[in-house]
Amino acid sequence: MTGEGVITSLQNPHVKRLVRLRGRREREREGVIMIEGARELSRAAAAGITPQTLYLCPPLFSPEAREVAPTLPGPPVHLSREAFEKVSGRENPDGLLGVAPAPAPSLPDPSGDAILVVLHGLEKPGNMGAILRTADAAGVSGVIVLGRGADPYGPNVIRASQGSVFSLPVVALEEGDALEWLVERGFTRVACTPDAPRVYWDAPLTGRVALVLGAEHEGLPPEWRAAELPVRVPMHGAADSLNVATAAALVLYECLRQRRVAGGQARKRC
Amino acid sequence: MTGEGVITSLQNPHVKRLVRLRGRREREREGVIMIEGARELSRAAAAGITPQTLYLCPPLFSPEAREVAPTLPGPPVHLSREAFEKVSGRENPDGLLGVAPAPAPSLPDPSGDAILVVLHGLEKPGNMGAILRTADAAGVSGVIVLGRGADPYGPNVIRASQGSVFSLPVVALEEGDALEWLVERGFTRVACTPDAPRVYWDAPLTGRVALVLGAEHEGLPPEWRAAELPVRVPMHGAADSLNVATAAALVLYECLRQRRVAGGQARKRC
Repeated sequence: MTGEGVITSLQNPHVKRLVRLRGRREREREGVIMIEGARELSRAAAAGITPQTLYLCPPLFSPEAREVAPTLPGPPVHLSREAFEKVSGRENPDGLLGVAPAPAPSLPDPSGDAILVVLHGLEKPGNMGAILRTADAAGVSGVIVLGRGADPYGPNVIRASQGSVFSLPVVALEEGDALEWLVERGFTRVACTPDAPRVYWDAPLTGRVALVLGAEHEGLPPEWRAAELPVRVPMHGAADSLNVATAAALVLYECLRQRRVAGGQARKRC
Repeated sequence: MTGEGVITSLQNPHVKRLVRLRGRREREREGVIMIEGARELSRAAAAGITPQTLYLCPPLFSPEAREVAPTLPGPPVHLSREAFEKVSGRENPDGLLGVAPAPAPSLPDPSGDAILVVLHGLEKPGNMGAILRTADAAGVSGVIVLGRGADPYGPNVIRASQGSVFSLPVVALEEGDALEWLVERGFTRVACTPDAPRVYWDAPLTGRVALVLGAEHEGLPPEWRAAELPVRVPMHGAADSLNVATAAALVLYECLRQRRVAGGQARKRC
């Protein structure tokens, strides 16, 4: 029942499939991602991603969803409010959800003093999403995801990144392949560790930089710790540590500052 | 039923009061705050805050809670699992919750090139908590809260700040009083706005600085916009804007960097 019809049955195959796709394994098996929300679908569309199916529930539309819905690509299927709430991953769904082929970007050949972000086994979708949003704002060339942390194309990361995950190449790689790729291309691996002798703003961050961010609790594995430039974010007060996404923002923007200072005011990046 | 007894009834006055105290109005009426979680209670204790009552539920203890519980101040009252889950604000409570008198810190008389943070009507507890955590890490002298945004001592802000709210003076002021206080003491009000001509790292941030952060959607009111030093965080990519807490971290740490560079390596602050 598509087209003019509205799916109301929770037993409908569309509904049952969408519920299954909330699991990462099922999404990987089908090679698809779920994109929920007006902003996230807009960002995906701007990045050239067209949903296989665009699920709509006008009674749930937010003002933004109402505005955006007619502009979104993908064959539409209407769901009843009950059906949409059943398949939504949100507390207050805005009535828009798309299923799209999983993006498979590749890393661009780096030009000049490129900046990359490497995420190693980051488990919290909120942190990963926040880092992707900041990486996009800072204009990094790409993000490499290592290990089995949060799914960068999972609904919670997409949401926390506000769709920024679609605006820059986010590539999952094996650890060995990533290390080789970075070494061959002359990237300095920079990592934040509390006991590093050098404060990040005193470190030379103008060449090709790969900012490596470890899992919240485990930190970085030894082979990644070995050949890198460790930097420290100075910390005062009772907080154990800055949030990993905050530390990432500080170092990424310090990379930009040093490039700006080194290269004058007229940088395309900013 | 306290001491050796365990409260099991959801009709018990302790339980009923705790449920009421989840509302801001009721907390303000009683002049108390609720502090939930091992880390948050430890931070509060370290700041000299003693709960009127410390509620415990050992069957729910996390490893951290088990370790911390015997060290926490305040007369203990045991709740059954069902009763604790009823009063907890968390999905996975760790079995520790205290009710304490609301802190009423005052702003310290600023010394040297003090840094303050001013929050104007910030509505999202997650953002406010993240800013407090970063402000604590950056060693700011205090935080001024204006307007009727999120409750800085509300459970969600306490949690998002990981208890940092107790480690630095967080003071609610009327807008006029705050402006007068800052002007009299020679603070430069710095605010992030997308159309500021100057990038934050090019602005002079070594004197007394009050970083003013506006509500997520409304920005700053005109009387606060008038006499300030506007700065811009350069942005690339599709993201509308950096998260307000990320922008705050960038400017606060740039204040530290400029002080460090100006004053040599041996700064107490870091």
